[in-house]
Amino acid sequence: MRCLKLTVSYRGTRFAGWQVQPGQPTIQESLEHAFQQITGQRIKVVGSGRTDAGVHALGQVASVVVDTDMECFRLLRGLNATTPEDISVVAVEEAPPGFHAIRDATRKRYRYRIQHGRIRDPLMREFCWFVPTILNVDAIRQAAQALIGEHDFICFQASGAERNSTIRTIFVSAVNPVRQGPFDFLEYEIEGNGFLYNMVRNIVGSLVEIGKGKKNPEWIPELIERRDRTLAGETAPPQGLFLVNVEYAGLDGDG
Amino acid sequence: MRCLKLTVSYRGTRFAGWQVQPGQPTIQESLEHAFQQITGQRIKVVGSGRTDAGVHALGQVASVVVDTDMECFRLLRGLNATTPEDISVVAVEEAPPGFHAIRDATRKRYRYRIQHGRIRDPLMREFCWFVPTILNVDAIRQAAQALIGEHDFICFQASGAERNSTIRTIFVSAVNPVRQGPFDFLEYEIEGNGFLYNMVRNIVGSLVEIGKGKKNPEWIPELIERRDRTLAGETAPPQGLFLVNVEYAGLDGDG
Repeated sequence: MRCLKLTVSYRGTRFAGWQVQPGQPTIQESLEHAFQQITGQRIKVVGSGRTDAGVHALGQVASVVVDTDMECFRLLRGLNATTPEDISVVAVEEAPPGFHAIRDATRKRYRYRIQHGRIRDPLMREFCWFVPTILNVDAIRQAAQALIGEHDFICFQASGAERNSTIRTIFVSAVNPVRQGPFDFLEYEIEGNGFLYNMVRNIVGSLVEIGKGKKNPEWIPELIERRDRTLAGETAPPQGLFLVNVEYAGLDGDG
Repeated sequence: MRCLKLTVSYRGTRFAGWQVQPGQPTIQESLEHAFQQITGQRIKVVGSGRTDAGVHALGQVASVVVDTDMECFRLLRGLNATTPEDISVVAVEEAPPGFHAIRDATRKRYRYRIQHGRIRDPLMREFCWFVPTILNVDAIRQAAQALIGEHDFICFQASGAERNSTIRTIFVSAVNPVRQGPFDFLEYEIEGNGFLYNMVRNIVGSLVEIGKGKKNPEWIPELIERRDRTLAGETAPPQGLFLVNVEYAGLDGDG
């Protein structure tokens, strides 16, 4: 048996998310189906995290245990020939025995794209959250800074989701304004050692409240301090969210 | 009667191009239909140029002559409420009497996006040309330089298209490499005082030949020199092309 590490990009628009759901198109199901076509084996593809319907990935990582001696480059080619065109397998690599995409992940980076302004960019509908007003970028930037460090992020966890610990460390939390033709975007980058369910979208929803001037930047440290899930802003919609990459100690030379 | 200048963005994917064609969805038809809904008048919307099926626009410009005293901001709002979601009217402005979007244009800028590399980015399928090999960016950059200046560009005109003059001046012809997650893009920017039919897509097709090493950068000045339409590279596909903006002497403060 071999352990493999897959790196996968996908456009989440037409999927019901990562995780297998009976009768619905999902990324996990597409990959498992492709493996079955190529190797004849029913295997489980374990993603570093489930992404929701509409959420995209540039570099999702998955682990598989498979009984085949096919070279990685042939598997890569076969997977890309078999999966739908909204999924690309970017890399197939040998992984150490026991490699597990969820358990072994040490860092994850997400990007969230917001379009702000009066008129919606028709080209980016599937790839951003359109907020029909000009946001205060400086206020958002100041608020984003307050997320960096080790904190209990329970205030940003979707209700219903239970985790053993809600403490996470955020290494990067930065806002980059991007102008594209007549349209203004904000790209919010966040990197941490892990994320609670819906944490990025709840953070973005809260940052947008601040950008609108409904709250001031000090609201973020207040939310963290209070540990109350009912106080944060609305959950930002899925189509602005991109899983950028996932790092593994020892595997990427960064651990 | 009032002359108005419209600035329009659209995702070209689901349209049969700009120009009205019976029984097909076009951007021009959508705008004319929206004007009829709002003002009750059948008017003609004149675009600065016809874009083909699949070609996108960030800032297409159109002129209309309309008999209404509705304020520009109300027309803007009404047009955006009426047109399909793949079209946004970015601005409606008063224009001088006789303003004509084709005749009065002094400069146009296009962008063409290429993805190059082994694996296709599934998020950008509708917004780039995927060339499944690594291109030589330096060679493309050198070749792109040779297009700047006043030249007879007949070698890059689609056959069948007849124009009085095939001489145009190119002010900008530049290649910008862009890395996005695991994917490599080239953004080619070209600005000129006008373009022949399919000229940008024929230039890009030729630059890609050079990037693949099938031709050397000196091929571009040779093509221009020979004035033969049969020699240039293949026409690049429409989905990588964006009409970025159109300038008008006196209107934008740049004339």
